[in-house]
Amino acid sequence: MMSAQLPTQPAQVFSRRRTALGQRLGDAPALVFSGGLRARNYPANVFPYRADSHFLYLVGTGIPDAALLVHQGRAELFVPAKDQDDPLWHGPEPGPADFAAATGVDAVRTLDELPAAVTAAGGGDRVRTLPSADPLTRVQQGALLGRSWPGDRAPGVADLGEGDLALADAMIELRMFQDDGALSILRTAVEGTTAAHAAGMAATRPGRLEHDVRAVMERELMARGMTPAYNAIVTVHGEILHNTTYHHEIHAGDLLLADFGGELEGWATDVTRTWPASGKFSPTQRALYDIVLQAQLDAIAKVRPGVRYRDVHLTAALTLARGLVDEGVLEGDPESLVERGAHALFFPHGVGHLLGLDVHDMEDLGDRAGYAPGRARSAQFGLGYLRLDRDLAPGMLVTIEPGLYLVPAILERQSLVGPFVADGSFHPDRLERFADVRGIRIEDDVLCTTTEPEILTKAIPKEAAAVEAAVVG
Amino acid sequence: MMSAQLPTQPAQVFSRRRTALGQRLGDAPALVFSGGLRARNYPANVFPYRADSHFLYLVGTGIPDAALLVHQGRAELFVPAKDQDDPLWHGPEPGPADFAAATGVDAVRTLDELPAAVTAAGGGDRVRTLPSADPLTRVQQGALLGRSWPGDRAPGVADLGEGDLALADAMIELRMFQDDGALSILRTAVEGTTAAHAAGMAATRPGRLEHDVRAVMERELMARGMTPAYNAIVTVHGEILHNTTYHHEIHAGDLLLADFGGELEGWATDVTRTWPASGKFSPTQRALYDIVLQAQLDAIAKVRPGVRYRDVHLTAALTLARGLVDEGVLEGDPESLVERGAHALFFPHGVGHLLGLDVHDMEDLGDRAGYAPGRARSAQFGLGYLRLDRDLAPGMLVTIEPGLYLVPAILERQSLVGPFVADGSFHPDRLERFADVRGIRIEDDVLCTTTEPEILTKAIPKEAAAVEAAVVG
Repeated sequence: MMSAQLPTQPAQVFSRRRTALGQRLGDAPALVFSGGLRARNYPANVFPYRADSHFLYLVGTGIPDAALLVHQGRAELFVPAKDQDDPLWHGPEPGPADFAAATGVDAVRTLDELPAAVTAAGGGDRVRTLPSADPLTRVQQGALLGRSWPGDRAPGVADLGEGDLALADAMIELRMFQDDGALSILRTAVEGTTAAHAAGMAATRPGRLEHDVRAVMERELMARGMTPAYNAIVTVHGEILHNTTYHHEIHAGDLLLADFGGELEGWATDVTRTWPASGKFSPTQRALYDIVLQAQLDAIAKVRPGVRYRDVHLTAALTLARGLVDEGVLEGDPESLVERGAHALFFPHGVGHLLGLDVHDMEDLGDRAGYAPGRARSAQFGLGYLRLDRDLAPGMLVTIEPGLYLVPAILERQSLVGPFVADGSFHPDRLERFADVRGIRIEDDVLCTTTEPEILTKAIPKEAAAVEAAVVG
Repeated sequence: MMSAQLPTQPAQVFSRRRTALGQRLGDAPALVFSGGLRARNYPANVFPYRADSHFLYLVGTGIPDAALLVHQGRAELFVPAKDQDDPLWHGPEPGPADFAAATGVDAVRTLDELPAAVTAAGGGDRVRTLPSADPLTRVQQGALLGRSWPGDRAPGVADLGEGDLALADAMIELRMFQDDGALSILRTAVEGTTAAHAAGMAATRPGRLEHDVRAVMERELMARGMTPAYNAIVTVHGEILHNTTYHHEIHAGDLLLADFGGELEGWATDVTRTWPASGKFSPTQRALYDIVLQAQLDAIAKVRPGVRYRDVHLTAALTLARGLVDEGVLEGDPESLVERGAHALFFPHGVGHLLGLDVHDMEDLGDRAGYAPGRARSAQFGLGYLRLDRDLAPGMLVTIEPGLYLVPAILERQSLVGPFVADGSFHPDRLERFADVRGIRIEDDVLCTTTEPEILTKAIPKEAAAVEAAVVG
């Protein structure tokens, strides 16, 4: 049970989730695996352990190489047998009784009892399961249940049979709506993420490296026992959307974009702020910053029950397009510019996604989680990258993260830009004065409630003046 | 080529290593894989990339899912084909010509050309390779070369055929002796590790958490673009040898043990210091600390060409035993106490190991790297955990890390303690006054030269007075 700690939430949080799962599955048994430790450079040198999210949701803590069986109103946890020498090296650790009490499961048994339990539950064909994120656990799942999981990097729902899909759908129905246990941890996680952004802003100085800023931000997480929820983006090249290098020096005229969120007990936060290295936006930076901010505020205001998330995205797109028309970069009717996708030249990604135990919550299940039945990805550049297209409902936690970027590879690609230049709706020459803006993104974590949206991350400075004050604070 | 950066050492460093490898293998082709990204909670959310060490040694930088073919005096790098949309998301990245220039390989080709290259080299049976640390890369290796690698967590040399063992032995012969390129990076890495220990000592205060100290230490690495070489131990429970939790509060009378080393461009450092939380050792802490320090100094002095590493271990054990006799805990002739393993009740682990690209260098090859041909692990408790038993030679980099621990699970185990209590060589009652000592370890990275050993990590405070000054500095 190396690395395993007990959950901090009451056992009823997990019992309730398991009961709800069992009700959805009726008589069918569900077997949810935790996944094992991942080798880094050799088998004994491992990455910090992170259990599969479905397991964390139902058990509350990660236990390497464990499995949870939910069947006929009972929940049983199967864990690796302890070696009698473990206490010599690992000290005293929680035992089966501790795990049972803290997680509320009916029994804690050893993994060697699992095959018989599977047989008793009707055999591998009857047991519903989902592929682990850990490839070696997938091998073990296959051997135990008589399945062949694909050996590739990303087994998808396309590989699942009907029974397993029923489990996937049940998990989606549950995890789509954050309960009090989840929100309690998330609110604490937000405190760490807030401290990290504040520290990052305060530590930014021309002459320092991106590394320096990232380091003070991660320190705030680590000091709280948190980890990054994903590989941070902390960069003066905000126009590189998937940028996880940190070696650039920060110069006085730069904007620093930090997409940085901490994780606590598996629960993720996901926040982006963009701030001026010198503590003062230039007029052109400020102009585009305020457009992005307005787009974000407009989008957040739409986070209400019954609103289709794609419309939240299009709301942000419209405000961005309107702002770019005002600046003379785009020309024409903002609504028709958005319809044709002109905004995506500057805002190529989606406005956000589900958030929960995964930073892109349940992305292991592909668009089955993010897209409502009957909806599919658009073929349009930009809109096609939207990760979520469901109708919002109370309890759904989403990110709202519009941005504006001057991406050379987009702006130089004739197939994308050509049509808009040809008909006069995009004026590339008018971008020149925005050369000191490479990329701006503003992202918050927003909870859909029965009334106003709740911005969990609202304590992190966002108005331009507040950001400036935090940088030179 | 996501995440790939160019090496900082000159290309000749890697050419020279590849040439030396080719000479050892004669006409046989060698194919060395880098390994892929590892999924954390879902496939797209990955752990920071770390390539396999054999690949890093020969290429100088990690490239996910790449392979290096060394054959007939040529070195060819096979890398995943770029997607035409990559620049939209990843920005400008090094291309084939950049990689060829920076690594000195004769050609950079795409991975889809690898099967034909394997055929041209004589086919999968003729190609020598080693199992990747990445299980999904092992699957790909198996498919490409027509091998079946074991699907378990730790494929060992026992699974290798004669040809692959020849590659393993060639890599061992090369990596056993650090060249100038390696030492150059290691010396820079040591600077980060030194800063981390200094910051950790300076940040230690009663009332803070282990988390706080670890956080300031990791910050120093991150600010230099380094990562931890292994999951750090930062604990007031030094008696728990494999302890990677950090949640305890630090109290005034505690010793804090930090086993913490940074990694730079894949090269590892590995340093342990133990310091008093209050800035002042108690007399009992100081007494045992000085015994451990003397044992470490005595062991380091033995790091000379021709000395068997097991004798370095036994030197430390003898000094420890002598010290425990002086303190009245053990009784009898120190040499015969060591011969019988009495010291291992307090010093159960080995005095150190190889260090290089892996913190336990080449542990993927098991004791084939650490133990000279014909030597095997001892059956004695303590000595059996020694990871290295070769004759030292110039260029070998080892850790020297004796310790003294009061491990309840050891001291309460009659099978270990009983014989020594029965004949009066161990007096458990005399341990009581050392209750404020849970665990002490002092570890440096030591290079065997033709003359005096060189302590790479000598700038990190170690004498008791220097440690005290650094804590309250």
